[in-house]
Amino acid sequence: MPTLSYTTAGESHGPGLLAWIDGLPQGLELDLEFIDNELLRRQGGYGRGGRQKIETDRAEIITGFRRGHATGSPLVVRVANKDDRLDDLEKTPPVHRPRPGHADLAGSVKWLTTDCRETLERASARETAARVAAGAIARCFLREFGIEVFGFVRGGMDAMSEVAPDENNWRELLALRDASDVYVPDDAVGERLRAAIRQAKVDKDTVGGLVEAHVFGCPIGLGSCMHWDQKLDSRIAGAVMGIQAFKGVEIGMGCECARLNGSQVHDPIAYDAALKRRRHLDSSVPPTTPADSRAA
Amino acid sequence: MPTLSYTTAGESHGPGLLAWIDGLPQGLELDLEFIDNELLRRQGGYGRGGRQKIETDRAEIITGFRRGHATGSPLVVRVANKDDRLDDLEKTPPVHRPRPGHADLAGSVKWLTTDCRETLERASARETAARVAAGAIARCFLREFGIEVFGFVRGGMDAMSEVAPDENNWRELLALRDASDVYVPDDAVGERLRAAIRQAKVDKDTVGGLVEAHVFGCPIGLGSCMHWDQKLDSRIAGAVMGIQAFKGVEIGMGCECARLNGSQVHDPIAYDAALKRRRHLDSSVPPTTPADSRAA
Amino acid sequence: MPTLSYTTAGESHGPGLLAWIDGLPQGLELDLEFIDNELLRRQGGYGRGGRQKIETDRAEIITGFRRGHATGSPLVVRVANKDDRLDDLEKTPPVHRPRPGHADLAGSVKWLTTDCRETLERASARETAARVAAGAIARCFLREFGIEVFGFVRGGMDAMSEVAPDENNWRELLALRDASDVYVPDDAVGERLRAAIRQAKVDKDTVGGLVEAHVFGCPIGLGSCMHWDQKLDSRIAGAVMGIQAFKGVEIGMGCECARLNGSQVHDPIAYDAALKRRRHLDSSVPPTTPADSRAA
Amino acid sequence: MPTLSYTTAGESHGPGLLAWIDGLPQGLELDLEFIDNELLRRQGGYGRGGRQKIETDRAEIITGFRRGHATGSPLVVRVANKDDRLDDLEKTPPVHRPRPGHADLAGSVKWLTTDCRETLERASARETAARVAAGAIARCFLREFGIEVFGFVRGGMDAMSEVAPDENNWRELLALRDASDVYVPDDAVGERLRAAIRQAKVDKDTVGGLVEAHVFGCPIGLGSCMHWDQKLDSRIAGAVMGIQAFKGVEIGMGCECARLNGSQVHDPIAYDAALKRRRHLDSSVPPTTPADSRAA
Repeated sequence: MPTLSYTTAGESHGPGLLAWIDGLPQGLELDLEFIDNELLRRQGGYGRGGRQKIETDRAEIITGFRRGHATGSPLVVRVANKDDRLDDLEKTPPVHRPRPGHADLAGSVKWLTTDCRETLERASARETAARVAAGAIARCFLREFGIEVFGFVRGGMDAMSEVAPDENNWRELLALRDASDVYVPDDAVGERLRAAIRQAKVDKDTVGGLVEAHVFGCPIGLGSCMHWDQKLDSRIAGAVMGIQAFKGVEIGMGCECARLNGSQVHDPIAYDAALKRRRHLDSSVPPTTPADSRAA
Repeated sequence: MPTLSYTTAGESHGPGLLAWIDGLPQGLELDLEFIDNELLRRQGGYGRGGRQKIETDRAEIITGFRRGHATGSPLVVRVANKDDRLDDLEKTPPVHRPRPGHADLAGSVKWLTTDCRETLERASARETAARVAAGAIARCFLREFGIEVFGFVRGGMDAMSEVAPDENNWRELLALRDASDVYVPDDAVGERLRAAIRQAKVDKDTVGGLVEAHVFGCPIGLGSCMHWDQKLDSRIAGAVMGIQAFKGVEIGMGCECARLNGSQVHDPIAYDAALKRRRHLDSSVPPTTPADSRAA
Repeated sequence: MPTLSYTTAGESHGPGLLAWIDGLPQGLELDLEFIDNELLRRQGGYGRGGRQKIETDRAEIITGFRRGHATGSPLVVRVANKDDRLDDLEKTPPVHRPRPGHADLAGSVKWLTTDCRETLERASARETAARVAAGAIARCFLREFGIEVFGFVRGGMDAMSEVAPDENNWRELLALRDASDVYVPDDAVGERLRAAIRQAKVDKDTVGGLVEAHVFGCPIGLGSCMHWDQKLDSRIAGAVMGIQAFKGVEIGMGCECARLNGSQVHDPIAYDAALKRRRHLDSSVPPTTPADSRAA
Repeated sequence: MPTLSYTTAGESHGPGLLAWIDGLPQGLELDLEFIDNELLRRQGGYGRGGRQKIETDRAEIITGFRRGHATGSPLVVRVANKDDRLDDLEKTPPVHRPRPGHADLAGSVKWLTTDCRETLERASARETAARVAAGAIARCFLREFGIEVFGFVRGGMDAMSEVAPDENNWRELLALRDASDVYVPDDAVGERLRAAIRQAKVDKDTVGGLVEAHVFGCPIGLGSCMHWDQKLDSRIAGAVMGIQAFKGVEIGMGCECARLNGSQVHDPIAYDAALKRRRHLDSSVPPTTPADSRAA
């Protein structure tokens, strides 16, 4: 069982979303401004729906926190909903028509109801606000060890960037990402993606996309090779595929490995005198460190 | 928390592998011959290493089982190792050179040891024998509900089959798979894959591959939209990526969704009078039912 | 793993206490007035400290609840603290003197701090407000099956009541309990307990006590004999001893069994034609049904 | 969730009992002779049934163990049953008459069967052989920290010893216990208990009893005051009451606290210059350190 864990609660149009985090060490400093900035980025993005104009999410830590640091007891962070109307039947009427690509039909069959309302309230993508808050808190913890996470949008539709983040260039790419309203650290690709989004709006459609995350400064030996469900790959894949609308996850070279020989895939191991540690050598293909993952 | 769960134990060259299964209903009949056949298929495959010639795996259920059925108490299934020599230092000497593509380096750093032996004994792919036994037992349970699982090798390297399993043709494809020593239900592609394996042997290399699994007869409403780690997609992805050497997992159309509009991806919902149930319509692209998954 | 579970968060002088409840069935009606009455009874009691005059606890369900019923998603209930001053160092100064009978010393050693404040904020008996709310919600669930719980104070010091609750008299005893400010359904014993409390106040001391709970209408077969930590006795004992200040728990005849023969302890089994069910016969000693428990 | 955990499997007349232990540190040395001695003591005791003459239990570690030490992977220990006949209907016939004081009735109602056989096979006290093996392994771990456990029979019926184990005399009491076939470290009381057992045999009855365990060398700060189910008291009580036939558990002064003032119960805290640590002072009553527990 993981020592550090979290779970979420809350509905899209209820009082708010909660993340419940267990296992944070006593004394850990949490940067509320950083957490709110993460929530702000979640709300952004070219072409987002009207909901984002209603809410301006802020993290409010309501337990396990005192004067800037975690107290060691369960920490609960709350993201309030301004659009709180779940108790008003007129404002949140029954939903009788299940939408494709949502949990509506599955939930209604499971709960034996013709009203999808309570399913969609919980299955809503707004639930990710709680996960972003939890993730931001986890990043405060990781920073104590010099571990940094960099995520971005690689692209969508036929607009895919070829940027290759590494330990040297990632902060520069981060600045490009933050300057882009589609979070693509590549202006030309970003412009093509914006055009695709504009066209989809005209067609009353939506666009697919690919996000990618890199972790830098991660030590060797996290996770476990002893239990199938504690392997780092397993836990990352489960976490990514638990996000609404994700249908694939790859680590390192991912599914491309299916078309390659082992010698093209396995990183040779060598000792890096400068880093004073043994490390995987860069090969001609992208590295397969467990912490690089892509998901669609 | 899942009601039905399993975990494994055991080392590659110890007395044997175990799977510990909790939550099987009292009275469930288990087909030992079926379980052994699944173990047999795991041991097969063109070009497998010498280990498979040593072991002829059989499932031995040592607790929670009586006269052909589960008793409702924890069920433990054992797959013995003929190659049991872990206590003999001469036959299982220290391993000081970590292999790329294995847990050797990560495990040694984690345990602060220069001997990779104990890491590789547990991280070994032989551990999957216990998982195959657990999976076969799970399939005995699913069969009570008319749920069937069909898995096969789609291909590897530049040999990828285009077969499209569905409810009507899958048993025919199953027969083709079982007649193939590379488990590809497509003779021409199988022959090309065999050639690639032969060449890799000459080059002292290995080949990549892609496996695909379909579930037929699965009802709507399994899993949960209430917790991120109980979603069916999350649990399937975590289970697949917990298998040694898997670096990607896709459900339905998978990462291809990144390049498509929502209208091309979401299955329309309609009522099927013949099946007397509401179902997702087949669209021109393959269906994205949660139970179809591909992994590399 | 239990299907229905709960955990708590929150500090004594923070914004409030939370109980997080997983596994309530979708559609379960919850009686908020009943829940608040349970909280009110927790706050009562002859001789309680000043804190109870500050707080008037009310349960506020902030997730998993809509228009009177549980929605099937995680349900979080909040009990706000009026005395919210944890972020103000002047109002919640460091505590350098660990108190006997509290977690102060253990927590400070664990967290390597000379300030007991954060330990005592979480270890505080105020945390039980969240448990009472969770218990009240669990009782709403049990009532759907006709299962009722009756708890009372048997006494303290040398004042112990001899009342013997059973299926016929418990509602009468309940009325007596509710009329007593020490929750003893026995006026004479209650008066002696009040006197002991008065004397303890004069002596700047406190008094011990014994509480007892009975469950009526409980079906046979709950819990599990398959896992040591899922047995009903184990789970009840763990729950009771997890309450602040409890040092003993007994089920049925409890430790008295140590001084009796098996024939005096084991309930004979017979068929009750009136109840149309097989049941344990009442023996001359109190019944040892697993649901009767006493705790000190 | 606890880092170190265990669960058991197996039936009374199946191939054997298993304990599955997760979280033992890699490299921990395990003393097989010590483990077998613990199993041997479990089998002893004046007046035990005939089963103990059939079985001579030995611990066989079948995974997670190599050349005398734990490997860090899940460790499974097996205690074989000589009396293995569960698959033979003639030797293990259906049991249609539920016994008082056993799980027979509850299990049969739960599983909707008129045959108690599969319930009693798992609920059997023989299952404790696996727990004793797990406990002995845990003691190997505790010994690395100088933590020792001393358990004994305080008595039964009207024969109760007044011995008071402490850090100075416990090894002497241990020798007395080991010389006693009723495990009472007090010859006179032991003789009276033996007499009670002899009389019960004549009467075709059984006797009650009280066992007591002390832990010496235990550091302050184990367990958690943050979660109700991780408190040391809660976990100890749950573990004890999960043992077959236990109906009460007390820690420190236990239920006696109900009749005492707080000043008689709470240990004063002082600094012990000799031990160079802060400690609870011995008061005139027995200490209430969390690790002293009595159970009936």
